[in-house]
Amino acid sequence: MRLVIAVVQDQDSQKLSDHLVERGFRATKLASTGGFLKAGNTTFLIGVDQTQVEDVMGVIRESCQAREQMLNPMNPLGNGVEPMVPYPVKVQVGGATVFVLDVETFAHF
Amino acid sequence: MRLVIAVVQDQDSQKLSDHLVERGFRATKLASTGGFLKAGNTTFLIGVDQTQVEDVMGVIRESCQAREQMLNPMNPLGNGVEPMVPYPVKVQVGGATVFVLDVETFAHF
Amino acid sequence: MRLVIAVVQDQDSQKLSDHLVERGFRATKLASTGGFLKAGNTTFLIGVDQTQVEDVMGVIRESCQAREQMLNPMNPLGNGVEPMVPYPVKVQVGGATVFVLDVETFAHF
Ligand code: NI
Ligand code: NI
Ligand code: NI
Repeated sequence: MRLVIAVVQDQDSQKLSDHLVERGFRATKLASTGGFLKAGNTTFLIGVDQTQVEDVMGVIRESCQAREQMLNPMNPLGNGVEPMVPYPVKVQVGGATVFVLDVETFAHF
Repeated sequence: MRLVIAVVQDQDSQKLSDHLVERGFRATKLASTGGFLKAGNTTFLIGVDQTQVEDVMGVIRESCQAREQMLNPMNPLGNGVEPMVPYPVKVQVGGATVFVLDVETFAHF
Repeated sequence: MRLVIAVVQDQDSQKLSDHLVERGFRATKLASTGGFLKAGNTTFLIGVDQTQVEDVMGVIRESCQAREQMLNPMNPLGNGVEPMVPYPVKVQVGGATVFVLDVETFAHF
């Protein structure tokens, strides 16, 4: 048994949830923050058999691959104040940090 | 030293907290979601000596044992709309998923 | 690779975050509760190389060392009701509980 702990940007969290369910993996989700961008993220706890680690890693990789995206300037306050970034910029989104831990004992009651 | 990670339905969370305190175990609780029912749950982190793993597993089992319960139909919005389930149904509540991990180093400052 | 799980009083959480960033450690933070005082706390997940465990433990110790503090009585409701503790008392604040776990596999996508 292994415990997979995956920290995933909020942007990809729903996609990862859906893909895990599709593949029959059960996950527990915890709201978290941190990393360089201080953006919100989600920490997934996924208990899997040792033989499924590669599968679940594949699901995480395909759901959360880091990629570049154009960020359009917007003024979320709509108050006429100039946005801090007045032109579209390329930002990196997505990505996941994954720790796989050995589980000494597993139980379900 | 072992780290016990227990994911528990919110319904049993307070009972487990109380029983852990009664038995002298200290736990850290994190709000979490997930599992089949998407119901809210609580993730407990409990650091215990290797010799106490069986004890703490017993406390979790007795506090969170899965069981059946009659769910009465209710219309939570009180707006005259038919409830989705118009008759009492048996649902499974409770249950816990528990991972025991080996701790390489433990420290308290 | 090691996963350091540190449970830290909210009071010290920002200081620990800042010091970790200063030292180049990336952390994921989860809101948590529990321990004797039921006070809010923060659970940090910090992935580090085996050779950095001592360093990160030092950062946690210096940021979160338990210490005594005078707690002044205050009536937070401002409603004329007597505070429960009508004179300054010494309370222990700070402190951290830290678990270091071995990581079998680490990945970043
Ligand atoms: Ni898809
Ligand atoms: Ni009881
Ligand atoms: Ni400082």
